[in-house]
Amino acid sequence: MNGDRRPFGALRSGSVALVGAGPGAPDLLTRRAAQRLAEADLVLYDALVDPAALALAPSARRVFVGRRAGHPAVRQAFINRLMIRAARRGRKVVRLKGGDPFVLGRGGEEGLALAAAGVPFEVVPGVSAATAAATLNGIPVTHRGISSAFVVVSGHAADAYRPILDSLAPHSATIVVLMGLGRLEDVAALLVGRGWDPRTPLAALLGASTAESAVRITTLGEPDAAGLGRRRAPGTLVIGEVVRLRAALVSTGLAPAKAAG
Amino acid sequence: MNGDRRPFGALRSGSVALVGAGPGAPDLLTRRAAQRLAEADLVLYDALVDPAALALAPSARRVFVGRRAGHPAVRQAFINRLMIRAARRGRKVVRLKGGDPFVLGRGGEEGLALAAAGVPFEVVPGVSAATAAATLNGIPVTHRGISSAFVVVSGHAADAYRPILDSLAPHSATIVVLMGLGRLEDVAALLVGRGWDPRTPLAALLGASTAESAVRITTLGEPDAAGLGRRRAPGTLVIGEVVRLRAALVSTGLAPAKAAG
Repeated sequence: MNGDRRPFGALRSGSVALVGAGPGAPDLLTRRAAQRLAEADLVLYDALVDPAALALAPSARRVFVGRRAGHPAVRQAFINRLMIRAARRGRKVVRLKGGDPFVLGRGGEEGLALAAAGVPFEVVPGVSAATAAATLNGIPVTHRGISSAFVVVSGHAADAYRPILDSLAPHSATIVVLMGLGRLEDVAALLVGRGWDPRTPLAALLGASTAESAVRITTLGEPDAAGLGRRRAPGTLVIGEVVRLRAALVSTGLAPAKAAG
Repeated sequence: MNGDRRPFGALRSGSVALVGAGPGAPDLLTRRAAQRLAEADLVLYDALVDPAALALAPSARRVFVGRRAGHPAVRQAFINRLMIRAARRGRKVVRLKGGDPFVLGRGGEEGLALAAAGVPFEVVPGVSAATAAATLNGIPVTHRGISSAFVVVSGHAADAYRPILDSLAPHSATIVVLMGLGRLEDVAALLVGRGWDPRTPLAALLGASTAESAVRITTLGEPDAAGLGRRRAPGTLVIGEVVRLRAALVSTGLAPAKAAG
């Protein structure tokens, strides 16, 4: 490892690393993330983190702070308190979050809490599902002559994605909706109402890099044809002409496997 | 390493891995990328890839195929030919690209060329500057109550970013302009003309994760104040209220260092 290129060197005692765990598969963590885990005394991890990644932190105490831990706001205050207390006791703390800590993951809130408490911290970027969900499934979010821009929204709340999707000139960008499976019909209707061609292809991507990954391809005009039924696990929508490239890109076998769609 | 979680297992003879090298620092490659490099017989790499990353491929022949290699279209045809020929001779080929291969990087074109030639390939996602440039510099592209969406455009050609930036409802998303430093004034004028508040903060991020990284903070109304002068190296613009969070997030020392802004 090239210490000179890592601005922060090793994880210091009494500090926190907010670490991105990537889209799921443990080997899609970065080398820096793996090193922080190896150095950690305490790891606080989310529901989206593959338990296999925790094997990279053999000497750490590992605490699950994901969804089962209660109401979001209560949980967040609890996590902040845990990080701050452990750092003040001189621990090396890793806060392991799915994707990238600063992309739709409350990492900014955690960083602000640490800063307010005077606890030194660093942020280790991760492979975000914002780009990787498509890449892992054989879809380039941009492609020369088709799309040179993309929009990332959260499907968590309609209030969050409607203003931007409503204003966007039809077909001016690829659209990625993270946690979007439950919003498939609403997003499709919104875009068609806004002037997008109903034949625009749409990919519903389930479980990105995990063993349970699957892909359903349909169009904006026929969201039901995705055949998701009640299957609304965390997953990503990718909308735009680039989705058509997948058919050619996955035809040679080695490219994104496990695609059952 | 968990072979069962890696859908493709090892890099096979006679195949190509299109591998994302991340934003620059060699330890921001993924573990899967490092493994592919360790297995490779031949590595074709770009100008954006840190030479230190090549140390991860000690037994491979390494060929630079970046900008110095001539006209873009000629170079691309040359790269495709090189990959295909080597794979047909049974080589394990890694095509190492900055960021993520399928995000503004012609990875789709390379994949299509391989598919057309019947050469098996896989795509290994990388940490894209689309998200990491901001993260590494202490800016969350999304933050609860401020922004829950972001737009990624390339500054490579005005034709590419104008339609989308022109249609976007003011302040409906954070904007990330990759390779955007040379477009700073044009993008700022476009957004202000479209109704964005001139006081909207703008961060010019140079050299993301490398030793030469630097940050300049200004506003849409005063792009000159970024003080870039003729300094127009590859770099990223981040535009939106989230930029204000940086002041608090980098105050505790360990967070993104080397910021000279």
